[in-house]
Amino acid sequence: MKKKQLAPGMHDKLFKRARSVYQIETRVANFLMANGFNRIDTPMIEYAGVFEDELDTHNYHLFDKHGELLVVRPDVTQAIARVVTTTKVTLPVKFSYSGKVFRNHDELKGLQNERTQAGIEIIGFDADTAITEALDLAKTSLTKSGVKDYRIELSHAGILQTIFATFDAAQVSELSKCIKNKSITGLTEFVKQNPSEFDAFLQALPRLFGPSERVIAEAKKLVSNPTILGNLTEIENLSHSFDNSTIDLGMLAKRDYYTGVMFRVFSDKVPYAFLSGGRYDKLFERFDEKAGAISAVGWALDVDAIYEEIRDSIIFDKNGGQEA
Amino acid sequence: MKKKQLAPGMHDKLFKRARSVYQIETRVANFLMANGFNRIDTPMIEYAGVFEDELDTHNYHLFDKHGELLVVRPDVTQAIARVVTTTKVTLPVKFSYSGKVFRNHDELKGLQNERTQAGIEIIGFDADTAITEALDLAKTSLTKSGVKDYRIELSHAGILQTIFATFDAAQVSELSKCIKNKSITGLTEFVKQNPSEFDAFLQALPRLFGPSERVIAEAKKLVSNPTILGNLTEIENLSHSFDNSTIDLGMLAKRDYYTGVMFRVFSDKVPYAFLSGGRYDKLFERFDEKAGAISAVGWALDVDAIYEEIRDSIIFDKNGGQEA
Repeated sequence: MKKKQLAPGMHDKLFKRARSVYQIETRVANFLMANGFNRIDTPMIEYAGVFEDELDTHNYHLFDKHGELLVVRPDVTQAIARVVTTTKVTLPVKFSYSGKVFRNHDELKGLQNERTQAGIEIIGFDADTAITEALDLAKTSLTKSGVKDYRIELSHAGILQTIFATFDAAQVSELSKCIKNKSITGLTEFVKQNPSEFDAFLQALPRLFGPSERVIAEAKKLVSNPTILGNLTEIENLSHSFDNSTIDLGMLAKRDYYTGVMFRVFSDKVPYAFLSGGRYDKLFERFDEKAGAISAVGWALDVDAIYEEIRDSIIFDKNGGQEA
Repeated sequence: MKKKQLAPGMHDKLFKRARSVYQIETRVANFLMANGFNRIDTPMIEYAGVFEDELDTHNYHLFDKHGELLVVRPDVTQAIARVVTTTKVTLPVKFSYSGKVFRNHDELKGLQNERTQAGIEIIGFDADTAITEALDLAKTSLTKSGVKDYRIELSHAGILQTIFATFDAAQVSELSKCIKNKSITGLTEFVKQNPSEFDAFLQALPRLFGPSERVIAEAKKLVSNPTILGNLTEIENLSHSFDNSTIDLGMLAKRDYYTGVMFRVFSDKVPYAFLSGGRYDKLFERFDEKAGAISAVGWALDVDAIYEEIRDSIIFDKNGGQEA
């Protein structure tokens, strides 16, 4: 009981930083509620099973009094899926939330283990309408947060899922590794060993990222699969509503419940994504096998990353006291 | 990794409850910031030593990657004292905060293990002025939260500290137990074995609670110690600024860093205190021996308890969607 300083990866927020982060969080939360997004507040401590099927050593774990594994939540989306599948909430429904999430990063990386998020989930609505609404709200939320310059990176989980469906588990594991490492030699070797209709596309994958127009044009020349062509058209259309969009077709879904469009918003100044999200129809099956796929789109805005982006432009009147 | 329901003592807040709790929290937080209270946000996960000198089994504990004991914060005041004693914050300073705190209660008690607080700390200012300001802000914060009827219970940590100072550790331990249990026979036996100038006061202690005027009048007849008489006058004066105040002179300080006035706000409807606080000049020595006593007053408002009190009077327009 002797250590009385800050724990690793944890930070105090004081004065300007504390006030700004609070203002960004509440501005976005108020905006979302005013737009018909029902506030939801799930607990900070849950059973590990709500978030993990296998132990994730980058989460903060603890035991309850019966020896069951608990976790300090790394995420909110999965908790909301738990609520939707295990309570009498009527679908369709729109939720908004804000609060802390936690990751136990390796100390040497110098990352913040506690971050403040604000986000939405649109569940059970027509998917195309929901994606358009989610991206419109993302744009307005970024503006309300004070972010001026940003770029959106689009991707589509369905593309790699269609390709993966033609291979067995071992092949998928090998292929995923090559994609993750953007290994051109690895992919060339893979298609030589495992030829398919996707050979040209897979070999080009490591360079299929960059300005939307170029990437889509190039990708469309490399595939003839109608599902994938449909996916490409879907993100092509969405890219038109942003001034500055890029596409990364080699983006592996962080979670296997993503089923469609995925997006992340960046600037050149801050190494974190300000906002990330996508379509995750398969999440609900984790909580209830009978739930099946439910159309769902959501995003989370990283309030701390936004503060890093806009901090130099925030000026408070003298009323606020000390600056830090 | 199988449990996918809510963990014991944890609750989801949806619809009306989630929105109301958010509104109470932000209304109070905004009011405090507007009154010159600098926002502060300390981490949700800290070393256990920040909050505990001995293991408190009602806290949520976990280990960091080096085997050091961490805790999911049970309180915010002690974290702020850590900041004040270990950083370059200039005194005097006024802080405000809001957020979650956690206690791992016995399941059978059916208590909520996660609660939302909003609070203040006034550190390094003249103590009398600080107490008056703290109580004024408490009143306005309760009104802004929507609470109409309440009663404040006042006490003074100095009274029992003066008495305890005349006994040794074993006697204090025995005496504390009798006071805690409001045991008249225990106290009668104690004063017989350990006579002092406080005999009459100690024997009367179990009935020295109730309407302020009566309790003060009765207590003043039973003691002649000038320090204690001064303490009684201090809470007597504070009681005048509330319509409905009671005094409990047998209230043991929950924490030994309380040094002066203590207060709790209740209604007849809800079993939790809406607001509790006091003067805690000795807290800073826990973090820095050289800090010595620093004049400090603070309170925390229990947003969840306030929601229980006012829920029936909250009506949202239909815009908000489902009710729960």
